[in-house]
Amino acid sequence: MPQFRQDFITKEWVIVSAERAKRPDQFQHERACRTDRPAHDANCPFCPGNEDKTPPSVYQQGDGANWRIRVVPNKFAAVNPALSPKRQRDGVFLSAEGFGVAEVIIENPAHNTCLSLMPPEGVKGVLETYKQRYTALSGNEDIDLVTIFRNHGPAAGTSLEHPHSQVIATPIVPPLVRVLMQQALIYHDTYGECPYCVMMNEEIKRGERIVADGKHFLVFCPYASQSPFQMRIMPKRHHSRFDKINDEEMAELAHMLQTALKKLYIGLNDPDYNLVLHSSPTSDGELHYDHWRMMIIPRITTAAGFELGSGIFINTMPPENAASFLRGVAVN
Amino acid sequence: MPQFRQDFITKEWVIVSAERAKRPDQFQHERACRTDRPAHDANCPFCPGNEDKTPPSVYQQGDGANWRIRVVPNKFAAVNPALSPKRQRDGVFLSAEGFGVAEVIIENPAHNTCLSLMPPEGVKGVLETYKQRYTALSGNEDIDLVTIFRNHGPAAGTSLEHPHSQVIATPIVPPLVRVLMQQALIYHDTYGECPYCVMMNEEIKRGERIVADGKHFLVFCPYASQSPFQMRIMPKRHHSRFDKINDEEMAELAHMLQTALKKLYIGLNDPDYNLVLHSSPTSDGELHYDHWRMMIIPRITTAAGFELGSGIFINTMPPENAASFLRGVAVN
Repeated sequence: MPQFRQDFITKEWVIVSAERAKRPDQFQHERACRTDRPAHDANCPFCPGNEDKTPPSVYQQGDGANWRIRVVPNKFAAVNPALSPKRQRDGVFLSAEGFGVAEVIIENPAHNTCLSLMPPEGVKGVLETYKQRYTALSGNEDIDLVTIFRNHGPAAGTSLEHPHSQVIATPIVPPLVRVLMQQALIYHDTYGECPYCVMMNEEIKRGERIVADGKHFLVFCPYASQSPFQMRIMPKRHHSRFDKINDEEMAELAHMLQTALKKLYIGLNDPDYNLVLHSSPTSDGELHYDHWRMMIIPRITTAAGFELGSGIFINTMPPENAASFLRGVAVN
Repeated sequence: MPQFRQDFITKEWVIVSAERAKRPDQFQHERACRTDRPAHDANCPFCPGNEDKTPPSVYQQGDGANWRIRVVPNKFAAVNPALSPKRQRDGVFLSAEGFGVAEVIIENPAHNTCLSLMPPEGVKGVLETYKQRYTALSGNEDIDLVTIFRNHGPAAGTSLEHPHSQVIATPIVPPLVRVLMQQALIYHDTYGECPYCVMMNEEIKRGERIVADGKHFLVFCPYASQSPFQMRIMPKRHHSRFDKINDEEMAELAHMLQTALKKLYIGLNDPDYNLVLHSSPTSDGELHYDHWRMMIIPRITTAAGFELGSGIFINTMPPENAASFLRGVAVN
């Protein structure tokens, strides 16, 4: 029987359509094995030896040419730090110059690796870099929101194979972010608890949508997942801002993130996905009602006219089935 | 210079990145010509002679086997009219059985046509069918929202070539729809005018984003378009509900819709697109602050992690350039 489900935070609805469900293995990707690619590509601007094809690093792990991770300004940035953040009215239309900061995090010297394949300390280095850039960009008082994300594969919006993440810092907190926060605020004002903490405890109690449960982090498939195999990674300690993460948590997060991505990589044969880090607007300080988290969104289905028109997504993979499948994928 | 722009109604922001703009012809699709396909496909469930492969028509134009348009229940529906619309609480989770009505509008007997290619009276027949189904489903008191849409091509979410639209009627008005309506309501409460009427008049005054301007309808590329070549078709006479359209308007709408789609078909070589009809929830009656409209959303770019995380879309085709290009495409 198909079922409407409402997301506890966003209040958006999905239709979970078990009748149309495929078996998990029918979602497998046809990509050729990533490790069949060369470890170094002389034409890749992110490969070692081509450092002059990018602007100089703004942050680096490893010394000089022996870098392990490099952060460089995005040469094809959609925003520019030299512009003004000031809003401008023109009749009914509101605009601003495209002020902002866009950076590329080159995650590893190897061209043919990814977060699922690199050594655990490599994943930890990437997350430390996320924190370093989040903290550095938070210091810019014209910046209100720092979005850190990863596009993996063409269906996720990237044509560049070399493993990389991106950072875009904007002077704007958009409605998608603010409306969610307002829903969480209303919940907190009503019940006196963070709704994310409440949801996470409920998921732990039920168990059926959990992919991995650690001391500090929970990985689960959300109750109202909009598309197959979505995963959320949430810290058990309440904080609205990612930069509050401590070293012990960072080590576990690296392990949990790699576990989640490796389960996708092995179970679905390296599907395209987006990874998004949600953290409160940098101008808002620490909040009782918001809770930082990571979303993994495999891009294996297409939103069509109904989804675009109504915001109601049809998900043919019940998240309980997705979680059960992912729990069963051995990653060691 | 890149520019942030805010949508006048939704308040969502986009970044219009002219630096990264391609020429319009670089967005051309590689699809083989649609008319090279056979006019009849014996394996297609929507082709004449295969009427027994679908459930019986719930509405039809033309008699018996000589149908011009057929509406049939969707055999692979995500919702089911035999279920209950009642919401159910289970701890913090809210759900409902998947009650609803899903129908397919088979737009034409010919397998190899589309709204851009069929005779004008064929397009008018499709729109009359939209109105008939909207009206019929509005009569169901458990239905709150009737979404009518069209998925054209694989990137728009369909693998079926035979020209068809879809209807999904749900007992739920989702936040995507309601939040927009609330923004419009606040504007109306503040200024005493429908914000869509205000925006449309502003677009007519400026002219630069207009694709076609008729007696009853305006076709334009929205100021804060989220992706290249988006078009909005709006009635100049204020109504929140599509079923208020009269016969004279219907004839012009058919012409304007076909003109808009033909310009895409010729100018960009038949790109995949979604067409969505937005009309007020059927349970709300006629509203001063809402305004029915159609959206044409070409699916020629991919939303990536930044868009999914922030809701801020990066659009590399300024809508003024898109409108200028589309105005220049001859369709007669």
